[in-house]
Amino acid sequence: MTRPLSGEPALIAALARSFGSPPLDVMVGIGDDCAVLDPNGADCLLWTMDTLVEGVHFDLSYISLFQLGRKALTVNLSDIAAMGGEPLYALFSLGWPPARDTAGALALGKGLAQVARDYGTVVIGGDTVASPQGLMLTVAVMGRVPRGEMVPRSGARPGDRLYVTGLLGESAAGLEILKRGLHVDPLLKQALVTAHLEPQPQLQAGRLLARERLATALIDISDGVATDLAHICRASGVGARLDAALVPISFRVWQVAGMLDRNPLDLVLKGGEDYHLLFTSPNEKGEELFLAFARTGLDPPHLLGEIVPGEGVVLSSPKGDTEITGAGYNHFRFDQEYALNFA
Amino acid sequence: MTRPLSGEPALIAALARSFGSPPLDVMVGIGDDCAVLDPNGADCLLWTMDTLVEGVHFDLSYISLFQLGRKALTVNLSDIAAMGGEPLYALFSLGWPPARDTAGALALGKGLAQVARDYGTVVIGGDTVASPQGLMLTVAVMGRVPRGEMVPRSGARPGDRLYVTGLLGESAAGLEILKRGLHVDPLLKQALVTAHLEPQPQLQAGRLLARERLATALIDISDGVATDLAHICRASGVGARLDAALVPISFRVWQVAGMLDRNPLDLVLKGGEDYHLLFTSPNEKGEELFLAFARTGLDPPHLLGEIVPGEGVVLSSPKGDTEITGAGYNHFRFDQEYALNFA
Repeated sequence: MTRPLSGEPALIAALARSFGSPPLDVMVGIGDDCAVLDPNGADCLLWTMDTLVEGVHFDLSYISLFQLGRKALTVNLSDIAAMGGEPLYALFSLGWPPARDTAGALALGKGLAQVARDYGTVVIGGDTVASPQGLMLTVAVMGRVPRGEMVPRSGARPGDRLYVTGLLGESAAGLEILKRGLHVDPLLKQALVTAHLEPQPQLQAGRLLARERLATALIDISDGVATDLAHICRASGVGARLDAALVPISFRVWQVAGMLDRNPLDLVLKGGEDYHLLFTSPNEKGEELFLAFARTGLDPPHLLGEIVPGEGVVLSSPKGDTEITGAGYNHFRFDQEYALNFA
Repeated sequence: MTRPLSGEPALIAALARSFGSPPLDVMVGIGDDCAVLDPNGADCLLWTMDTLVEGVHFDLSYISLFQLGRKALTVNLSDIAAMGGEPLYALFSLGWPPARDTAGALALGKGLAQVARDYGTVVIGGDTVASPQGLMLTVAVMGRVPRGEMVPRSGARPGDRLYVTGLLGESAAGLEILKRGLHVDPLLKQALVTAHLEPQPQLQAGRLLARERLATALIDISDGVATDLAHICRASGVGARLDAALVPISFRVWQVAGMLDRNPLDLVLKGGEDYHLLFTSPNEKGEELFLAFARTGLDPPHLLGEIVPGEGVVLSSPKGDTEITGAGYNHFRFDQEYALNFA
């Protein structure tokens, strides 16, 4: 028995039910990082779309339009990475406030174009519309992954180890600095603010995990480990145990958490937008995994905990266990009952 | 020599320049109804994306959420029709105001699902985000068209005839009734308001024109004939002459234009959202064209005028010629000079 969904996952599940079951050529439909199509070639087609809204996902008082263009593509490339794929093409739709100088739209386009070039993606179309109430930006990316290499969220098994490709909470700490105007050491500020404003899609790590079949489940961290790990657990029908002592927290995040009088683990587990990859890997592949990362010139992944039977996400520390399932960012409150009535 | 672009086309052109030239496997990039990819199969892949923004594209005081869901997918299917293709899959991104009851999001999803079922499309993924300032909806559709059948905007040649698949101005007249609360005959109101709120994508006509190679250029009417015909002219390097006497205007549109003290041609040429197909066809294929439409059970297309050498769109009437190039809907004012500086 799985517990009922609430909030955004419940809304998505209810919408998915109204769209019905996908046909057989759709390998993965609603509910993973990308939709996966199985055309008649050697590759599966990946398809993802993400929207950024002014006042929700960004504040133009601290992100430049160039950085915003970068980020709008990056968050989509991160979804491609989270399937083990490589990006091919992008469409983007720009909702631009008519009163704002359209020169800014070109700065935004240049940011998008830079990330496209850096990661071998081509922007081939889109839409421009007026958006009186604020800027918004939707990007869709098409990618591919060789048949048999695609890594969904649903393959985690009890006993698998849980890893992340980088330090956690840097982006959330950077956002706190920006929002509160914290006075911190310039180098520290630079590192954290850059983590928030200019995240990097982990395409190389994603392809490595897929190609070498090192991951059983894979997701990118957009809403915080607590929420994104819960997605893996639900999709895989398993639980997860995070070891509080293993969570990779930099001195930078410790320092900002101290200034905010917050537990750094709170920033790390609930703060999103790290865009690192969270993945599970069989216990016996540990050595192979670290060798593969080293050979590719990537920093070693960080062990976070393990997959266990059951459900939900638990944080283990010497003080005891705490359930943190889905404690990360959630756009909506939404009653499961409501959803069922309308499905 | 072509005249400089302004407004939305100039913004799009400037963005396109910053994205650089697409690689060889992109047959059609920015600037047609869909991007066209040429994978290694028998079909080209079509890809399009459109955004609807509250207060710009719709007003929830007169469109229901169910109708809005229908329309968001329809406008994208119309772009697939305008390449002569058939739709396969859709992604949708929903920006939902958190204060609004999420039950409405499901009504919207049901409208989208209905159109998807009606036209053989499958919704396979998307994104849900909070959008504090108003509802917005982006849909992306992937489709296919057999290699060699795809109809771009760029194939019109002097001497070609210009046709439209249905009556013009019905949607614009329906919008005027809704916006101004005009009191008109209930049946007349029903027809016009439905044309505006529940347009139909002309997929059957689009496939017919493509399969039988009856069209040299093809576009759907979203921004009004004056603007959409100007797109064909620019892409094809030709001009067009509309015969005012031939423009298909129903008694319904005449009646509403009369109440508004407006020239019905003005409603028809500048009003958008008819989502009929505007196409050019060689003079000598006239008989074949009408036979093909009749055989398929489609109403005959309406002759509107002809393609001429030169550039721009001219409206011919006994009173003389009037240039109406790009007189339809345009989201932005945008200086060409600005665009060039930023490209």
